[in-house]
Amino acid sequence: MGLIVQKFGGSSVRDKERIFNVAKIITDTYKAGNEVVVVVSAQGDTTDDLIAKACEINENASKREMDMLLSTGEQISISLLAMAIEKMGFPVVSLTGWQAGFLTRSNHGAARIRRIKGERVRRELDNNNIVVVAGFQGLNRFDDITTLGRGGSDTSAVALAAELRADRCQIYTDVDGVYTADPRIVKDAVKLDEISYDEMLELASLGAGVLHNRSVEMAKKYHVNIEVLSSLEQKPGTIVKEAVKVEKLLIKGVTKDENVARIALIGLPDTPGIAFKIFSLLASKKINVDIILQSIGRHNTKDISFTVPLSDKDAALALLHEKFDVVGAERIEADDNVVKVSIVGAGMQYNPGVASKMFEALYDANINIQMISTSEIKISVLIERKDADRAVVSIHDAFDFKDN
Amino acid sequence: MGLIVQKFGGSSVRDKERIFNVAKIITDTYKAGNEVVVVVSAQGDTTDDLIAKACEINENASKREMDMLLSTGEQISISLLAMAIEKMGFPVVSLTGWQAGFLTRSNHGAARIRRIKGERVRRELDNNNIVVVAGFQGLNRFDDITTLGRGGSDTSAVALAAELRADRCQIYTDVDGVYTADPRIVKDAVKLDEISYDEMLELASLGAGVLHNRSVEMAKKYHVNIEVLSSLEQKPGTIVKEAVKVEKLLIKGVTKDENVARIALIGLPDTPGIAFKIFSLLASKKINVDIILQSIGRHNTKDISFTVPLSDKDAALALLHEKFDVVGAERIEADDNVVKVSIVGAGMQYNPGVASKMFEALYDANINIQMISTSEIKISVLIERKDADRAVVSIHDAFDFKDN
Repeated sequence: MGLIVQKFGGSSVRDKERIFNVAKIITDTYKAGNEVVVVVSAQGDTTDDLIAKACEINENASKREMDMLLSTGEQISISLLAMAIEKMGFPVVSLTGWQAGFLTRSNHGAARIRRIKGERVRRELDNNNIVVVAGFQGLNRFDDITTLGRGGSDTSAVALAAELRADRCQIYTDVDGVYTADPRIVKDAVKLDEISYDEMLELASLGAGVLHNRSVEMAKKYHVNIEVLSSLEQKPGTIVKEAVKVEKLLIKGVTKDENVARIALIGLPDTPGIAFKIFSLLASKKINVDIILQSIGRHNTKDISFTVPLSDKDAALALLHEKFDVVGAERIEADDNVVKVSIVGAGMQYNPGVASKMFEALYDANINIQMISTSEIKISVLIERKDADRAVVSIHDAFDFKDN
Repeated sequence: MGLIVQKFGGSSVRDKERIFNVAKIITDTYKAGNEVVVVVSAQGDTTDDLIAKACEINENASKREMDMLLSTGEQISISLLAMAIEKMGFPVVSLTGWQAGFLTRSNHGAARIRRIKGERVRRELDNNNIVVVAGFQGLNRFDDITTLGRGGSDTSAVALAAELRADRCQIYTDVDGVYTADPRIVKDAVKLDEISYDEMLELASLGAGVLHNRSVEMAKKYHVNIEVLSSLEQKPGTIVKEAVKVEKLLIKGVTKDENVARIALIGLPDTPGIAFKIFSLLASKKINVDIILQSIGRHNTKDISFTVPLSDKDAALALLHEKFDVVGAERIEADDNVVKVSIVGAGMQYNPGVASKMFEALYDANINIQMISTSEIKISVLIERKDADRAVVSIHDAFDFKDN
């Protein structure tokens, strides 16, 4: 018994059958005595269809009008889901983002939630209604409809859970939880019962793709307990919550990130401030640099290698070539035949030997490590792209996930 | 130079080509130095498609959720039209019904406009924007989205024109004005330059189908000059405005109404109050009775015949049979093989001989008149359904429309 926020993605409501499947989950939760607030995305391909419609008219349409158009997607899914719940005989009301009180910054297409005025949702709950809210959208201070951009619906759900002080925020997806590795790659990957916000953040940024970082960051900030679970199977998922301090080693997962490229600046002058110059240049164009490796070159020069998202590689190279004189390198090399494989888990800093165990696994599999990066809860290596899945399997085998 | 409200129906924005055609009309009006507010319906079949989606889920969905769903139709068309106007390089902003300040009564599906808070539209006009508003929709006092029901978009346009004190409200349709008769039936039907609100009301209620009565009534109440014109041809349409007092006969048109059935109550007791009893019974079920004819029957009884909308025939018969004892008729007859043909025009009451000219035309065409009804601006006859088009042509030929 409590207040539960449930979020369903677009594929969970893509057709009549799925809508009634979701309605069953919702009404079961309601029947069990809970107050239920539901956050829904646009159905299946609706958003893509609307974008195609817009592009036919104007491929450079303003973001304001795009938001006006795209926000209809969730409005359609909330009303259809509410109709399904009505059909099953339960009291329900659907609310758009603005009706549910989502106030955002004014930037269209990627607006951040400023605050939520929860009165309307609270009132509907007090009237014993199931409340179905359109995710991904809000209203800015000009009374214009905004959309939240990538990961928006998850963020809507977590923000609403925070505002309502919900007991839990359930994120229903097409996987049944967070795994120690991608089950399509590692057969004996284990589903985690629990994971901390920080660990989840690392896994998400490394491409596990279950929850968007933005929603996890918000959950961490407002102490919202998230549960990731499947809308297609009735079983417990993975709880994402505050870290419990542990000294015991708990590797939470092995993950690969394919959106990565390596850039090398060869033969830089060995003068102070050269790294600062390069990375502030990249930062000015909002290019995120991840692993950085600096080595002594020949003849009083040095080499700097670093990784950027694959999607930013061309922009980074163009920028470095444009500022070739400023950078002062002899030459610039780029390699997108790489992939980043990481292990994530709290307690790593108390457990020497974790890194060496990982490197040993890679050595045994005859996989060459190009770069290494470590943090309190993560060790990442850059390896050749073709070795990615073998690396994940080897590392996963080397650790014991049975405890999780 | 002035403030012009332009309304475009669903077929006028059904695809890319039509949307740009409409955008051209709008931007031409704007370029000519006018402030332009546009009211748009949902594209082509969108509303029907959404209704089908809803029925698949729940054929008895609440009207509130239907309104939530259906209002997305206009939201899609306003954003796409705004994108087209952007593409043509003009400043534009789209507004939903609630953003444009449409406040309605609370009944979903057929809400009446309570008032319009015009500040937002006024502000956008002051910023030199073309303003594209979603017709057919508003917000009730619970902050829920409502739709206005039949004729809603025309009514939105006229109401907004009234609120903004627009110089003209142009209703663009797929015909180029109001004709003296249906051009598909009468080859030499003439387009009217002007028509009064009252005449338009009679023509609309008799099935001319260009403007919904609700919008004409509102235009009459707030003195809004309407122009009905074609979105496909560049030429003046028909102005609907205050009547100019005339003594000259001006028949404005001949029209037929096929949504009619005749009911006869035979052998009623010849006692006072019997007509009152019957018609208050029908009124209690909101069945509109039009032409009424009472005649002396045999043996101290009387017969009463009247017409009802064909769509109400079954309900009327069921009610009369249910209350057979109260009604006290010997038998009840019904005939839906009838049609109502009317001439409409101010000045009729000053011109005796109009009715006889109409009856003569029907006599010459060998068409039998079953019932007759007259008002200050209308003469209607009930005839057999098969004679309808011949009757319209004969009557149209008998009058001279060249003056109009």
